[in-house]
Amino acid sequence: MKPYRELNREELLELKKELSERYREFQSKDLALDMSRGKPSAEQLDLSMGMMDVLSSDDDLTCEDGTDCRNYGVLDGIREVKELIGDMIEVPADNIIIYGNSSLNVMYDTISRSMTHGVMGNTPWCKLDKVKFLCPVPGYDRHFAITEYFGIEMINIPMTQDGPDMNMVEELVTNDASIKGIWCVPKYSNPTGNSYSDQTVRRLARLKPAAPDFRIYWDNAYGIHHLYDDEQDHVLEILAECKKAGNPDLVYKFSSTSKISFPGSGIAAIAASYNNLEDIKGQLKIQTIGHDKVNQLRHVRFFKDIHGMVEHMKKHADILRPKFEAVEDILERELGGLEIGSWTKPRGGYFISFDSMEGCAKEIVAKCKKAGVVMTGAGATYPYGKDPHDCNIRIAPSYPPLQDLITATELFALCVKIVSVNKLLGK
Amino acid sequence: MKPYRELNREELLELKKELSERYREFQSKDLALDMSRGKPSAEQLDLSMGMMDVLSSDDDLTCEDGTDCRNYGVLDGIREVKELIGDMIEVPADNIIIYGNSSLNVMYDTISRSMTHGVMGNTPWCKLDKVKFLCPVPGYDRHFAITEYFGIEMINIPMTQDGPDMNMVEELVTNDASIKGIWCVPKYSNPTGNSYSDQTVRRLARLKPAAPDFRIYWDNAYGIHHLYDDEQDHVLEILAECKKAGNPDLVYKFSSTSKISFPGSGIAAIAASYNNLEDIKGQLKIQTIGHDKVNQLRHVRFFKDIHGMVEHMKKHADILRPKFEAVEDILERELGGLEIGSWTKPRGGYFISFDSMEGCAKEIVAKCKKAGVVMTGAGATYPYGKDPHDCNIRIAPSYPPLQDLITATELFALCVKIVSVNKLLGK
Repeated sequence: MKPYRELNREELLELKKELSERYREFQSKDLALDMSRGKPSAEQLDLSMGMMDVLSSDDDLTCEDGTDCRNYGVLDGIREVKELIGDMIEVPADNIIIYGNSSLNVMYDTISRSMTHGVMGNTPWCKLDKVKFLCPVPGYDRHFAITEYFGIEMINIPMTQDGPDMNMVEELVTNDASIKGIWCVPKYSNPTGNSYSDQTVRRLARLKPAAPDFRIYWDNAYGIHHLYDDEQDHVLEILAECKKAGNPDLVYKFSSTSKISFPGSGIAAIAASYNNLEDIKGQLKIQTIGHDKVNQLRHVRFFKDIHGMVEHMKKHADILRPKFEAVEDILERELGGLEIGSWTKPRGGYFISFDSMEGCAKEIVAKCKKAGVVMTGAGATYPYGKDPHDCNIRIAPSYPPLQDLITATELFALCVKIVSVNKLLGK
Repeated sequence: MKPYRELNREELLELKKELSERYREFQSKDLALDMSRGKPSAEQLDLSMGMMDVLSSDDDLTCEDGTDCRNYGVLDGIREVKELIGDMIEVPADNIIIYGNSSLNVMYDTISRSMTHGVMGNTPWCKLDKVKFLCPVPGYDRHFAITEYFGIEMINIPMTQDGPDMNMVEELVTNDASIKGIWCVPKYSNPTGNSYSDQTVRRLARLKPAAPDFRIYWDNAYGIHHLYDDEQDHVLEILAECKKAGNPDLVYKFSSTSKISFPGSGIAAIAASYNNLEDIKGQLKIQTIGHDKVNQLRHVRFFKDIHGMVEHMKKHADILRPKFEAVEDILERELGGLEIGSWTKPRGGYFISFDSMEGCAKEIVAKCKKAGVVMTGAGATYPYGKDPHDCNIRIAPSYPPLQDLITATELFALCVKIVSVNKLLGK
């Protein structure tokens, strides 16, 4: 196909007419499809139904050290689940605290605690005039929502193929003591699907922040969420890298089983240095007597060990892979060579990131919606919902059944074309 | 028995010798018993083992409105669990948000949110010079730990048979805008076991606080935790009373199933006015995508309805009642008439409150510990761990098996006698 920008006005008008007709056909279908959120499909959830059978009234709900998991107690999680999650995120069990069902909640609580009580003895952020966070963009809207909620100023950091622009990160973090953190989704990043290069991880681990309470907020959301068995991204383990760099306390690593077992009923964790964990536990013991140990036990009995979990993830991949490939195939077929958009081809995670021509994303999403397909709101991948170029759109292929996804993606591609043609026509 | 204070020095010395001998006998038994925390016993936990069978891989985990409980979503809890908890705490389902496994966590989050974001548009507490809380004493140590952790100044309010001293509460709350809350355990209070009278509840509901963001923190921990089927305390429903008094927003009501199903794996809730709930949800949606709906469904399928829950609580009562009665019998037998201590005889809840002679509690607890029986630390029932009269000790009869409990209580009574004799001897 010829790039759209090489078409003359007449050709563009002709094209517009043709595209409008196809759009009307879509509208007549009364679609109600959702490509907005990174939710597993029902088929994926079925994979974990065995979780409902591993604990029965005949079973002993005592964990290995003799603790009755049904009663109060064990602030930081039972040993065997720490080991399972430790293997999952490549961190020793001793560096882990197990939480409830949501890593987002752990991240929120981490920021909230820093606001009211500070980090490891430093001034509580609520007593400071200004607190700033670095936000690699495009990124995860719920991260940005937390920092915005706490009145933390967010600074956009462009994402490259290798992760955040490290020159910019180093420059800012070294010189500005009001910068207290950076949001990172290092592997199969939300939404680009890219992973941080070894060089990026090492440079992050070697940061010399002006603020002693600066931390890397490492959201290891998709650590074992590969789409392919043979081609997998690998990200250097950040706790170990920080330790090697003489910065053991520099990072909080967050994770959960949300997209491994059941999203609302999984287990979440934080991994960090001994000093950070002690600091956290000083707060945690005031907040709760302990999290759901029966559910911790349920996860251990179901997955048994990291090998069981890895095998389980292959089944997720078998369901997700055709969906990602379908989206990529349609985008290539419909938009390849037109130079009106580019998109990522991740090897894992939950998203494909699409960049339209400048100033077109909002209109594309609106046009999809008018024909019954909900996309993540344009701008959502940027702090304050403001994409300065209005071009990034997050595509979430996981939730709809394959046939719906194909229809939705075809409509999406059509909307990209229509909005791009209008843009080129100067309308 | 003759009151100890009527014994002369010689009689006291003789008594001391005899008691010391008995104490040495206890020491030789190498006891390791725990009467410190309000934990259900293993026998009680067994009552809920059916929870492990109500959801299996053959079951549909869809709730009544069609939501798949396995996936993300539903911020404030599934409808049927709101109805169950609503019936449990006598509040309409629409006034409820369902949380995770711990009401303590909900209380902590409520205070934390007030610190960073304020209550319904009022100034965040972290921006104020001084924030104070009223603390009816003796009270629950974990409540006091939260307010202490956030640097909130705690003011002791004496507990009467009818609840907190309301003259003092009204006087303080009406005149001091820095007072932002009062901790209440209205029914089978921790640790006295007393319940607030109707008059107390009405006076609380009719408070005219100087601070617009003053709230009653109503910890409905033992709402259906009766020991007897015929003699039950009844406490007026506080949300309804506040509404009647024209103060609909005055109260947060906390509850959980911790001592109904499994303590670490239950469900917690907050009940409040529409305005309060909207305020809370504005924060909650930033903190999490939702709590554990599978566990919510598990509770509904197990208990079915409030009648099922009430029947279940009778089984708990059958296990707890003999324990409470054993403690009371021993105390009466050993200490009755000696005028060296008084204790409560609650009709529900988890605790008996004991008051020794002034200045004796710490020593009694220490003496118990030296002979192998752990009591709740003396002072724990007061803010900052400071019992001004050093006389209150919380007895938790629930956890040890009956025979152990008898031994522990006998030792406790003996320690009370020894320390009292020493006190009277002026030593």
